[in-house]
Amino acid sequence: MRASLAVVLALLAATVVASAQGARRAVSLVVIGGTVLTENDTRQVLSPGAVAINGSDIVDVGTPAEIAARYNAAQTIDARDQIVLPGLINTHTHAPMVMFRGLADDLALMDWLQKYIFPAEAKTVSPDFVRTGTRLAALEMIQSGTTTYTDMYYFEDEIAKATKDAGLRGVLGQTVIQFPVADAKTPAEGLARAEAFIQQFKNDPLIVPAVAPHAMYTLDAATLQATAALGRKYDVPVLIHLAETQDEVKTARDEHQNTPAGYLESLGFWGPKTVAAHGIWVTDDDIAILKKHHVGISHNPESNMKLASGAAPVLKYLAAGVNLALGTDGAASNNDLDMFEAMRQASFLAKLSSGNPTAVPAQVALDMATINGAKALGMEALIGSLEPGKRADLITVSMRAARQVPMYDAVSHLVYVTRGDDVRNTIVNGKVLMRDRRLSTLNEAEVLAQAKALAQKVRDAVQ
Amino acid sequence: MRASLAVVLALLAATVVASAQGARRAVSLVVIGGTVLTENDTRQVLSPGAVAINGSDIVDVGTPAEIAARYNAAQTIDARDQIVLPGLINTHTHAPMVMFRGLADDLALMDWLQKYIFPAEAKTVSPDFVRTGTRLAALEMIQSGTTTYTDMYYFEDEIAKATKDAGLRGVLGQTVIQFPVADAKTPAEGLARAEAFIQQFKNDPLIVPAVAPHAMYTLDAATLQATAALGRKYDVPVLIHLAETQDEVKTARDEHQNTPAGYLESLGFWGPKTVAAHGIWVTDDDIAILKKHHVGISHNPESNMKLASGAAPVLKYLAAGVNLALGTDGAASNNDLDMFEAMRQASFLAKLSSGNPTAVPAQVALDMATINGAKALGMEALIGSLEPGKRADLITVSMRAARQVPMYDAVSHLVYVTRGDDVRNTIVNGKVLMRDRRLSTLNEAEVLAQAKALAQKVRDAVQ
Repeated sequence: MRASLAVVLALLAATVVASAQGARRAVSLVVIGGTVLTENDTRQVLSPGAVAINGSDIVDVGTPAEIAARYNAAQTIDARDQIVLPGLINTHTHAPMVMFRGLADDLALMDWLQKYIFPAEAKTVSPDFVRTGTRLAALEMIQSGTTTYTDMYYFEDEIAKATKDAGLRGVLGQTVIQFPVADAKTPAEGLARAEAFIQQFKNDPLIVPAVAPHAMYTLDAATLQATAALGRKYDVPVLIHLAETQDEVKTARDEHQNTPAGYLESLGFWGPKTVAAHGIWVTDDDIAILKKHHVGISHNPESNMKLASGAAPVLKYLAAGVNLALGTDGAASNNDLDMFEAMRQASFLAKLSSGNPTAVPAQVALDMATINGAKALGMEALIGSLEPGKRADLITVSMRAARQVPMYDAVSHLVYVTRGDDVRNTIVNGKVLMRDRRLSTLNEAEVLAQAKALAQKVRDAVQ
Repeated sequence: MRASLAVVLALLAATVVASAQGARRAVSLVVIGGTVLTENDTRQVLSPGAVAINGSDIVDVGTPAEIAARYNAAQTIDARDQIVLPGLINTHTHAPMVMFRGLADDLALMDWLQKYIFPAEAKTVSPDFVRTGTRLAALEMIQSGTTTYTDMYYFEDEIAKATKDAGLRGVLGQTVIQFPVADAKTPAEGLARAEAFIQQFKNDPLIVPAVAPHAMYTLDAATLQATAALGRKYDVPVLIHLAETQDEVKTARDEHQNTPAGYLESLGFWGPKTVAAHGIWVTDDDIAILKKHHVGISHNPESNMKLASGAAPVLKYLAAGVNLALGTDGAASNNDLDMFEAMRQASFLAKLSSGNPTAVPAQVALDMATINGAKALGMEALIGSLEPGKRADLITVSMRAARQVPMYDAVSHLVYVTRGDDVRNTIVNGKVLMRDRRLSTLNEAEVLAQAKALAQKVRDAVQ
């Protein structure tokens, strides 16, 4: 296998080679060798395989011999001893909150929020803060194989600019919330900011602008409806937290004699472009509502465990055919943005909470982090699998560590023994953002130095 | 801070320097700079700190200036931007089972054991198999910061030799089990093998030989008692699986009208050198029994989640003052030997299962992986903390990754955002087994190549 692949690589490297049938097509990039997990409808695996990319798009997926025979690549990435897969899709985070990671762990939720997170946010969150935080988050995401992330935070226009500069794909939701926050004194101001943000980024190749009503318990009915209307007006995603805690369920019952999902349905809130994060404390009827309206669910197992929020009914969502995706949540409650950890935890938590070791097998966890993420965001025509015509968002992952030897099954290894640090190459929209761990869009030393300087302001804010 | 530490380092590097009070004492190794977590009784932290080592022992812990003034080191490790802490103690694994990692995941327990693990063991386990597997496990443990590990497997004498060659400390239990296994046709043969093994390694500086009766449901009463007697005769640890599954509880009830822990007490099995792995399905009375007999408990959160075994009552053990330590279990059910993952999971699982986000804070998880591990093994006079007179088992861990920036709290970062791969230096018994990721006792390429070759036999065995 090695020898023949070496021949193929040599063939590909030759500057002028014609196939028997004629000249090879010029393409910008070929990723060749390694085990290619396509995540297409049949979950086809090519071992070894290759992916041809031109500009922003995948043009072909095949064996190394096929791809070498058909294409003349301007750039080649040798992925031998690696796994090639669609870039991971993080469907729920608050990117700039990397600045608060480890600021105050192991506290009761209200202590954590009221003594640390809210005061720190009140004193530090600014356009400059979100720029620095987003760059740090982007660095971590590129290094750990996330190619698309979904965000809910403040000054989302600044987050969008930093995300574009880093070359990442983002579904970015401008937060709307009832009480005064850093970028809006009123929900009306937040709505206006969201609309301006949507208009600014509506046709961007990398950014999908969205509106992010925070949650049913932090917004009144009229504002919740206004956010849904804004989403429909521009055909953009609407992102919301849902049933994260039992307190939220109690609030819905006390104030609206309903469940959170049922109450939002009664407002006409749900639609096919809504993505609900957490979805832990839901009834069977709630799951039916979410399925009926094609709501995407972002499961955040690490945050849900660390904050002791609970275990989402993952098996029920899957059985109901709900688009169940994965997220890390903000790094303040995780404490990182590593989607490999999220995959592993999704599988472990489902097994534990169901008492069934066959629950959420590795393939299902991988699906949740790739194609299911794309479906939850309504982006399955563009991302989530390696198929011709889709955007070229893919990663390659090393399998050379001692903890990855021996390898009997590539998918098992990705989920159970791989870390974000094993990612070698990260490609988004056809652009190589990290090549053999070297970054092309971000200056790591500069990003880390700026974050460390900003951290002093955070420390001062919670003194 | 940096400038003054640089001066201190220069001072230390000078070959002939006398302090005002006289010549500095010659020592073999100084680890200097970085945040030193001593894990002593007051959990003292020196930031920055330094550790002086001579031969196999820690001789001093202090500030960099103090240590530089007192000692003239033959070798120096610069630990700036790193955390220095006691080497991690893995209190339950089956080292050679790294050869079965990922062989058959996501199966029901009996399918996994009967269709894959038992047939693979029957056809492949041999002295050569355990040597190759132990070397691979040792490589992974050294790379991920484990300095002492506790083992239960077959041909434990071969495991001991490979462990010594790798330079690791091992509490190694020769398995005794009722049915025929690779190294013993009968339990009597297993007992004889265990006694010979104990005699062979009783006074070894690195190896603590032990006897490992598999479990109450795989051994008859007489053999269980014989293993306990053997432990007492030689004053060595006795290692057993306890209450890992509800099936085990049912067996104890049906056959002995007792709980597993109660049944073993009725046999006079428990003693201060017994270590029980898992301890999931225990009653309050069982916890009282385990406390009364000073039994160490090895909590294995990852394996318990992956196999859907259940969640051990960690908070009850801690409240009762039981010595609660951490383990990874074998890599066939984890799927790695990374104790950082075990710490994180111990904290996450305790928070989730108790519904309390303050449960098992980072410091407690770190204690479980260090000083509690030493106590559970009855080795707290030798290992588990950085204190003069103890053996020099310590590691240094990098804090330079993007996912570790910013850092507000060293202990939080160790537990929530650190991976085994962040370990830079691993020192056991005063010997540097890994220096800045370069191994001194193992040839990584050779170990991996041998493991890959052996993996083909495992594949063939389960065809």
